[in-house]
Amino acid sequence: MPSMRTDDDRSVTARALDLLGALTPERPSATLAELARAAGLAPATAHRLVGELLSWGALERGADGRYRVGLRLWRTGLLAPVADRLRERALPYMQDLYEITRENIHLAVRDGDHALYVEKLAGHRSVPVLSRVGERLPLHTTGVGKALLAWSGPDHVQAYCARGLEARTRHTITEGGRLARDLRRAVEREYASTHEEMTLGSCSVAVPVRPDRQAPPVAALGIVVHSVRADLQRLVPALRVAATGLGRRLAEDPDPGVPGRPG
Amino acid sequence: MPSMRTDDDRSVTARALDLLGALTPERPSATLAELARAAGLAPATAHRLVGELLSWGALERGADGRYRVGLRLWRTGLLAPVADRLRERALPYMQDLYEITRENIHLAVRDGDHALYVEKLAGHRSVPVLSRVGERLPLHTTGVGKALLAWSGPDHVQAYCARGLEARTRHTITEGGRLARDLRRAVEREYASTHEEMTLGSCSVAVPVRPDRQAPPVAALGIVVHSVRADLQRLVPALRVAATGLGRRLAEDPDPGVPGRPG
Repeated sequence: MPSMRTDDDRSVTARALDLLGALTPERPSATLAELARAAGLAPATAHRLVGELLSWGALERGADGRYRVGLRLWRTGLLAPVADRLRERALPYMQDLYEITRENIHLAVRDGDHALYVEKLAGHRSVPVLSRVGERLPLHTTGVGKALLAWSGPDHVQAYCARGLEARTRHTITEGGRLARDLRRAVEREYASTHEEMTLGSCSVAVPVRPDRQAPPVAALGIVVHSVRADLQRLVPALRVAATGLGRRLAEDPDPGVPGRPG
Repeated sequence: MPSMRTDDDRSVTARALDLLGALTPERPSATLAELARAAGLAPATAHRLVGELLSWGALERGADGRYRVGLRLWRTGLLAPVADRLRERALPYMQDLYEITRENIHLAVRDGDHALYVEKLAGHRSVPVLSRVGERLPLHTTGVGKALLAWSGPDHVQAYCARGLEARTRHTITEGGRLARDLRRAVEREYASTHEEMTLGSCSVAVPVRPDRQAPPVAALGIVVHSVRADLQRLVPALRVAATGLGRRLAEDPDPGVPGRPG
C-alpha cells in the first residue's frame, strides 16, 4: 500500500512514526543514535527524518542535546477524544471526589485488554501510585479495569478470563473462574474493588461510567487508597454519585469519538 | 534536505504531519476530504497517508466515519516534558490551591509570544474560562502570561512591548509603555494581575515559578476568578506559597527538558 520504500519494507511515514514511537515512558528522551537504533533505521535516514519531525514540532531538542516529544505533538495529542471531550467533562466530578476524600482519583477507558489512564488527581497526602496518565495496566489488576470489564457483558468477561492472567503481586487474581466470580459480585454490589492486586499496600474501588446503560461503560472512575486505612465501602456512595453525574453529562451531549461509545 | 518529493515541494513526512496538523481545537474531527483540503493534498495521497497514520494509531476513525487524533498519538504527546515532568510535579500544588480557593487554577509555560496552558483545574463552581489545556494566549492578555513576561528580563519585556499588542477585550492593555509599567509593578509587588483583559467578567492573579531565581521563570501559576467577587490580593499569599514549593521541587531534580530551564 505505501508507495515509497527504501532500505526496508516500511514506508517513509511509518519510519518517521517509528522514530516517535522510540520515545516511551521508560525512555522519554533519547540521543539521535538511540532513536535510530530503536526505530531500526540507518543513522543518515534517522537524521533526515528527525530533522523533519523537529521542524514540525513533533520533537524538540533539549539543552542536553537529547530529543524529546515536542510541544506541538503534545498539543495535537490533546485533541484526542479522551482528552478533548471525556477528560474535560470528567474533571469537575473528579475534583468533587478529591475534595471529599483527598485520595487518588482515577479516570480510565478500555484500550483492548488494558485500562488506559486518562486522568489522575492526587494531593500531597494521597498514597503514591504506579499509574500515570497515558499508562495502560491489565484490566484484571486494577479497580477501574475491573469496572470496565465487569460491565462489558458476559462474553467479554468470559473471553478475558479464559486467557492467561498476569500476576502483578501475590494477591493478583490469576485464576479465570475466580476473576469471573469477582466480576459478577462487582456487578451485583455495583462497584469493583482490588486489594493489593496491583501494588502491595494499595486498595481501590471503582464504578463504571455509563451514559447509555444498555452499552458497555465508556469509562470508569476509581479511588486508590492505602490498605491500612482502607474502608472501601465508605467511598462507594460518593463515587457512584460522581459517575452517575458524569454519565448524565456525557449522555446530554453524545460524542461518537469517545472510545467505547456506541455510534 | 527531504529526499522524496512528489507533486509539491513538501516531503512525505511533512505531508503526513500536515494531515495531523489539519486537526485543531476548532476542528478536532474531520472527514478524509476535509483533511486532504486542509493539508493541501490530492485525495489519493491523503487516503494513503491517512491509512498509515491510522495503522500506527496517530489517527482513529469514529463511529461517525470522521477522523480524530488517535490514542497512541495522545499517549506519545504525554511524554513531552511539560506533561511528563512539569505537570506531574505541579499537580499536587495546584490541588492545594484549588482546595482553598475553589477557583480556576492554571499552569502555563512560555511558548514564544504566548502563554501555553499546561494544566487547568476547575470545579463546578469556578468561573467558566476560555483557556483550555494545550491552548495558547498572547502573553499580555492573561495573568500567567504577564508573570512569564514580567520576570523574563527587561530586554524581553521591551521587545514584546514594542510590537503591536492585540486587543482581546476593551480592557486589554494595547499601549506598550502602559504594559511595561504594569509589568514593572508586577515585579515590585511580586504578582501579576489582569482585570477583564482577556474575558469580560474575569480577573486573574499569577506568580512565576522559578527554580533558578537568576533565570527566567519555567512556568507561571495563576488563579482566575469572577470580577464581581475579585479580591485578588487575598489570593496572592497562597499562590506564592504554592509557586515557591513547586519551584523548590523542580530545583531538587533539574530536568533540562522542561522549557525555559537553563541547560
